[in-house]
Amino acid sequence: MDNDVLRRGKPTVHVQFGEASALLAGDALQALAFELLTPLDGTVPAAIQARLCGLLARAAGSGGMAGGQAIDLASVGQALSERQLREMHQLKTGALLEGSVLMGAHCAQADAATLQALQAYGAAIGLAFQVVDDILDVTADSATLGKTAGKDADNDKPTYVSLMGLHASRAYAQELLAQALAALDGSTLSDTQALRALADMVVNRAH
Amino acid sequence: MDNDVLRRGKPTVHVQFGEASALLAGDALQALAFELLTPLDGTVPAAIQARLCGLLARAAGSGGMAGGQAIDLASVGQALSERQLREMHQLKTGALLEGSVLMGAHCAQADAATLQALQAYGAAIGLAFQVVDDILDVTADSATLGKTAGKDADNDKPTYVSLMGLHASRAYAQELLAQALAALDGSTLSDTQALRALADMVVNRAH
Repeated sequence: MDNDVLRRGKPTVHVQFGEASALLAGDALQALAFELLTPLDGTVPAAIQARLCGLLARAAGSGGMAGGQAIDLASVGQALSERQLREMHQLKTGALLEGSVLMGAHCAQADAATLQALQAYGAAIGLAFQVVDDILDVTADSATLGKTAGKDADNDKPTYVSLMGLHASRAYAQELLAQALAALDGSTLSDTQALRALADMVVNRAH
Repeated sequence: MDNDVLRRGKPTVHVQFGEASALLAGDALQALAFELLTPLDGTVPAAIQARLCGLLARAAGSGGMAGGQAIDLASVGQALSERQLREMHQLKTGALLEGSVLMGAHCAQADAATLQALQAYGAAIGLAFQVVDDILDVTADSATLGKTAGKDADNDKPTYVSLMGLHASRAYAQELLAQALAALDGSTLSDTQALRALADMVVNRAH
């Protein structure tokens, strides 16, 4: 699916172990995620288990990550509008990041205002993650990035940098960071320090 | 993963749509299964949703189908004992069939005796399914089978037919059918006709 030969500075699974094993490992890991959400030892109430599985399934599937990836596959060599690019990334990266934040919130049995705030926070950092990914693909070298740099342009893929330029992409990432932090103010959480640090890390990371 | 070009008489997904889309469709379909098990409309109690997700995750993952497929991949060109072959198929096909039967039983809130009976039933037809698959790969032509016949021998894969011969494989399939039907007698179900018919169909199918 992805022609990367490096991830986090190491050979990708399909390079190291072959395509069939890589594919199978992906299938097994997706199942493992749901296995971990449904422990048999009574530590997680059934209602929360069901909610977590539902959130993960919807974030990962055709209405989430897999759907976004399908648009990505179909968009190679195409000119996408800013709206189309945003919709693709909201599915491809945003849905799973938003889902992860909401899963934590449901574990903590957060109130409705906090769920809404965290959903907006998750959506903003999900999109920001992808904008920054597009920026780093252009500005970082492969050693720093831990994966093959310059791949998007090589693959003729639409990115934020190709669409709006490097300068505007950086400004947009900072705008999304501000949105994420502002969203947290709508929650009833007493301590949002870790969530603020996470948003900052997503946007200001070097790799 | 599988070099079949035909399934149910039609081109396989990777032949028709390319490998990347086929892989992605598989990921999306696995997520869809969990989405369907966690409806948001209140029709399925949360405790049952959680139980169904747990059963499916364990049947599909490294301790089930994906694990069996990994052994299958690793066993090409290897001589497996009957025990090793059975263990492979119990994971690769048996776990998901057994899981499916148990998911139905949990939906019906079956008692412990019935759950145990249905687990034995599912395990027997799961293994029988694979024994019959091995037989049909040798005895049926591709048109009847709806997929490429003779593939196992071509791929130098260990099968029940290569291990015990055609005659003994057929006898073993009938023995597993008898085991499946006997297991149903241990349940408290008032009507097992559909389950008996299903077991018969698995073993006596022509494709």
